[in-house]
Amino acid sequence: MIAEHTVFTITPGSESDFERAMDHAATIIARAHGFISLRLQRGIEQPSTYLLLVEWETVDDHMVSFRESELFSEVLALIRPHFGSPPQVEHFQAPSLSCQASRE
Amino acid sequence: MIAEHTVFTITPGSESDFERAMDHAATIIARAHGFISLRLQRGIEQPSTYLLLVEWETVDDHMVSFRESELFSEVLALIRPHFGSPPQVEHFQAPSLSCQASRE
Repeated sequence: MIAEHTVFTITPGSESDFERAMDHAATIIARAHGFISLRLQRGIEQPSTYLLLVEWETVDDHMVSFRESELFSEVLALIRPHFGSPPQVEHFQAPSLSCQASRE
Repeated sequence: MIAEHTVFTITPGSESDFERAMDHAATIIARAHGFISLRLQRGIEQPSTYLLLVEWETVDDHMVSFRESELFSEVLALIRPHFGSPPQVEHFQAPSLSCQASRE
């Protein structure tokens, strides 16, 4: 498992349109080979930014299989109209460390 | 719930020392008020970067209660020697969207 980490900076005022577009886009991304999970979180200090975290089986599942598929074109057509600047994409390894609060 | 999102850029060559320090630091962070969960992931394109995602009840639990506590000083003493540049900290709201692959 690896994590795609994409930060979107949205045209101010388009946030709710972008969120609706992502609701639809997520159903398309979820059909891709190697997709595991996805979540979208809005910035607090910078409310026109959104962090998209997608778990994929491998980097190639994201960058090759998905990016070269028709699914990616469908996703771009939905969300690109709301981009204020180009998305910043990086990948991270599976967690080397994770822990949760123990609730007593 | 909110997410602290901190990117650490580590002095090249210090990665395994940093990971060991974070193993210890995590046990300290986990004692803080409002702590929910934590994970650390190493960059793939930039292997001297690490993404720390910490879920807290509120931004103030992180920025006030924790940052002004002795726990934060203990954490800094462990991990600061490995910093190549100052950590970049942002906060994100709880996910507005999340989905998982359905496994058949």
